[in-house]
Amino acid sequence: MTYCLALRLDEGLVFLADTRTNAGIDNISTYRKLHVLRPAPDRVFVVESAGNLATTQEVLDRIDRDLATPGEHESLATVGHLFEAALYIGRVSQLVAGNHRSGLSASGADGTATFILGGQIAGSNPDIVLVYPEGNYIRASDDRPFLQIGESKYGKFMLDFMVHDRVDLPTAVKIAVGSMMSTARANLSVGPPYDGAVLRNDGLLELREFRVEADSPTIAQLEALWAKHLHNAIAELPHIAQDEITGIN
Amino acid sequence: MTYCLALRLDEGLVFLADTRTNAGIDNISTYRKLHVLRPAPDRVFVVESAGNLATTQEVLDRIDRDLATPGEHESLATVGHLFEAALYIGRVSQLVAGNHRSGLSASGADGTATFILGGQIAGSNPDIVLVYPEGNYIRASDDRPFLQIGESKYGKFMLDFMVHDRVDLPTAVKIAVGSMMSTARANLSVGPPYDGAVLRNDGLLELREFRVEADSPTIAQLEALWAKHLHNAIAELPHIAQDEITGIN
Repeated sequence: MTYCLALRLDEGLVFLADTRTNAGIDNISTYRKLHVLRPAPDRVFVVESAGNLATTQEVLDRIDRDLATPGEHESLATVGHLFEAALYIGRVSQLVAGNHRSGLSASGADGTATFILGGQIAGSNPDIVLVYPEGNYIRASDDRPFLQIGESKYGKFMLDFMVHDRVDLPTAVKIAVGSMMSTARANLSVGPPYDGAVLRNDGLLELREFRVEADSPTIAQLEALWAKHLHNAIAELPHIAQDEITGIN
Repeated sequence: MTYCLALRLDEGLVFLADTRTNAGIDNISTYRKLHVLRPAPDRVFVVESAGNLATTQEVLDRIDRDLATPGEHESLATVGHLFEAALYIGRVSQLVAGNHRSGLSASGADGTATFILGGQIAGSNPDIVLVYPEGNYIRASDDRPFLQIGESKYGKFMLDFMVHDRVDLPTAVKIAVGSMMSTARANLSVGPPYDGAVLRNDGLLELREFRVEADSPTIAQLEALWAKHLHNAIAELPHIAQDEITGIN
């Protein structure tokens, strides 16, 4: 599986993706699932992918080919809005999955893929959208300005509790890594290293990339702090339903 | 959906179950999913259920009928070990699901159910097992002595981090409610009130039951403490990958 997330904050965008892939439990590998595209000077995109690895690779290859062969056809260099980029990726994704459907169905495999697309085209605000295998897309909600794809349940509590528009970017990166850590701890199919990217909302279109390695002291530190505060929260809480269960004390 | 969990600690057992049921999103109701059975003076059982509501009700009705009509047949009063009780419930569950399979398959519905069974028969230690729709069962692991059924992913991080043999019972109840709260917050299909039960490992077979209501001050308190400590943990953590992303500060 996979876990990718994206946050849309007043200060900018934060992306984080794990790198573990598996075809069965005995074929585990490491692939980038966070891809940075700079198709023209006035735009920068981050594409995160979940689902069939062959499909996501072919989708990215086709995106690159469309960019490398200028002409009448649409590409990430020609679209005028982020939602048009989302629809374009949705169409390519549907095309690739459709091309391989009959081949894959023989073995019962699913060739679909889901994407998070984020970034900025000069003149518009930075934004993030989720592109479904069906080719349509949704934006992040205003109240909960984040998107997740893949194994999204284990790490959702942290985003639910912590992510709102006004979180600053360094804090948002820590929240994203915390959500990723909880997921990786609960589910072996999600694992480090983690690829991240940050886009400030300053119109400069300068995307900063980073990677958190498996042996990063940050991960160990986060685990320890996390356990400490979880214990403190539970310890501070008065006993529950004291009247009914005083007998257990 | 549903979320039920059970913890097996040195001091005893803790059970917690939500009460929300839904048949489609416009048919939401409240049912007990935690059931206490005292089929004989030398034993007490807790049964938690997830899956098809009609199946779980018929399974419980058949368990009661077997107890009410003594004879040669097996029942929860006749089994000598908890694993035999698990196999008995598994057989009843398979029988009920099988009886309704053809009727349900016409509408594409799934009639299976999954159970957590816990409790004690005098002379043995208290224990918990998960009974699969296929009729077999597993015990909780020694390293992570808890079981979950239903929407188990959202609240797993808290059990992963906090549950070990030596947690005392009042603390274990708070951990269980915390795991439940994180799940209910992330998923509308899980909701209060929450039914709980505690069985001390003292051989007295006295099961204490409790209920946490939706308007319980404990829930509000836990949410507030939880948010505070989550913020503190993130605030204490040094900025991540400082070298790579100092530019975002």
